[in-house]
Amino acid sequence: MEKNKIKIAIIGYGNLGKSVKLAIEKNPDMELVEIITRRPEAVKKIEKDIPVFSFEKFDILADVAVLCGGSKEDIFGSGNNKELSTVRISDPYSHGQGLYFAQFFNTVDSFDTHRRILDYYQHMNKVARLNRHTSIISAGWDPGTFSLERVMADTFIPECKIYTFWGPGVSQGHSDAVRQIPGVLDARSYTIPIKRALAEVRKGNKPELKPKMMHKRVVYVVAHKDADQKEIERNIKQMPNYFADYDTKIIFISEKILNRKHNGFPHCGSVILSGKTGRNNKAVIEYRCIWDSNPEATASILIACARACFRLNKEKRYGALTMLEIPPSYYSAHSISELLQNYM
Amino acid sequence: MEKNKIKIAIIGYGNLGKSVKLAIEKNPDMELVEIITRRPEAVKKIEKDIPVFSFEKFDILADVAVLCGGSKEDIFGSGNNKELSTVRISDPYSHGQGLYFAQFFNTVDSFDTHRRILDYYQHMNKVARLNRHTSIISAGWDPGTFSLERVMADTFIPECKIYTFWGPGVSQGHSDAVRQIPGVLDARSYTIPIKRALAEVRKGNKPELKPKMMHKRVVYVVAHKDADQKEIERNIKQMPNYFADYDTKIIFISEKILNRKHNGFPHCGSVILSGKTGRNNKAVIEYRCIWDSNPEATASILIACARACFRLNKEKRYGALTMLEIPPSYYSAHSISELLQNYM
Repeated sequence: MEKNKIKIAIIGYGNLGKSVKLAIEKNPDMELVEIITRRPEAVKKIEKDIPVFSFEKFDILADVAVLCGGSKEDIFGSGNNKELSTVRISDPYSHGQGLYFAQFFNTVDSFDTHRRILDYYQHMNKVARLNRHTSIISAGWDPGTFSLERVMADTFIPECKIYTFWGPGVSQGHSDAVRQIPGVLDARSYTIPIKRALAEVRKGNKPELKPKMMHKRVVYVVAHKDADQKEIERNIKQMPNYFADYDTKIIFISEKILNRKHNGFPHCGSVILSGKTGRNNKAVIEYRCIWDSNPEATASILIACARACFRLNKEKRYGALTMLEIPPSYYSAHSISELLQNYM
Repeated sequence: MEKNKIKIAIIGYGNLGKSVKLAIEKNPDMELVEIITRRPEAVKKIEKDIPVFSFEKFDILADVAVLCGGSKEDIFGSGNNKELSTVRISDPYSHGQGLYFAQFFNTVDSFDTHRRILDYYQHMNKVARLNRHTSIISAGWDPGTFSLERVMADTFIPECKIYTFWGPGVSQGHSDAVRQIPGVLDARSYTIPIKRALAEVRKGNKPELKPKMMHKRVVYVVAHKDADQKEIERNIKQMPNYFADYDTKIIFISEKILNRKHNGFPHCGSVILSGKTGRNNKAVIEYRCIWDSNPEATASILIACARACFRLNKEKRYGALTMLEIPPSYYSAHSISELLQNYM
């Protein structure tokens, strides 16, 4: 371990964890010092130069741990956290890795169940404060930079309307949901914004748009050879929250084609503000991103947040924070003087 | 004056000052309590319900003063500020309104001479700290939100290239420069981004672009009837820094047409990041804004900064700050709980 570098732990070593490793390599002020995983024996085989630990037994080597648990429940357990004592959390599974690891590390995560973020924030705030840690929660692009842009848009132009469009891109959550249907072997669900709506909003108009007027979905499904495709199609199209409110197209393909043509995780999206200033003059702001790799994009932002986390903790800013509460300069490796000279 | 509202002073009552007044009216947690101007008698005639003061003699009624001085030198004097004692600044003219008014008020300004921002910051920092004030400098869209997006882009995607395109829109500075030429009665200079360059960058390529490959300029000129148009054209095209490095088109028009067709101050622009994440996957982020009124856009952002300024001062964060150092939640009138529930 080198001196003065920010020492990072990766907790959970799937797609996101591996992307975080790559992101660390692009930031010369950081180094990966440990991986903590549910399956240490398997990870040790592919990562021979980095200490690998289990959830139950690990050394605390890092300044900041990046939580890369694969599913939503990994980060914040769906157990009854209302009753949770935050004095000692002994189980990373039922309460989730966030509360468990905030006892031992400063943490950064990308918890993305929007309706549970406030609840998660309040729990993490307690645990992190108690342990004098700083925990940046729900970071990435949405929630994350998109949240930040929504807040800024709303405050800069009051009385505006804010629209969020996603895609074209793969939605992991929707793909997972389809995979739960009997007879489905694998699936990729794409979210696609509806061009007409996007164009209307970009023009500075403020249309009322129902979900199905903003997005449609296309699902590629690999079905078991004995499965009833009509039945699968009906199951997908009727699934509440996920597909029922959208025009959804279902395309059955072979596993070979799925693996060849739908193997990446591209995604993109836009936050668009449409409003008026002063004497009714049009104002439009659009924040748009295009990612050929969604997990790598999230990882890149998490690593900038890890830098902010490290600094905020040094300043004794204990507790939970979101990207809304972090001064942008804290993400950067440059000094304020450098930023004022080169970026203003 | 109502209790609990943030009390705002406008200092300088031109285009920007009037736009700030309109912006305050859209934010129910704020109120305009005074105008301080070089020409109080003239302003008193149009603003009868608000106390109007001169630069030399004013009451301190406001929590935050928004500096709306028209030209760059108004805000930060071009005098020898290196020698400046910051203990007592008695002259708002030679040292500029920033240093002068930071003695009496928390301040927000949109000082936009990029190469002098660091110098201005250091001077303002001293004066504001000495007087336990908070001064947010160089706020607006560029510098301002564009600066913020450049810093975030740079930290989220290291090794990226960041491009800033402006326009189509009126450039005040360039219009003013043309008006200095003998024989020119009035002028409007438009900055226009070059479509091919914009399209190339948006695709995720990283071209090397010289200034003239990114922007061109179109100048509408009203010339005196006895002036030599060829001479004016040559003078404009050869003007260093402003026009010499660009393809510039000059169109002579009548004053009537200028006032009818070029009376507004529209502007727009984009900050575009083009880079790669992890295993060489493409990443593009674009922050784009379209303003039908440039001064109203700046005013709207300044007013959100005034809210942040008021809060930061209550927390004893004395000194100078830019938008790079402000947590985005400080701009918003909503509580953190509201933001986490509705904007994440």
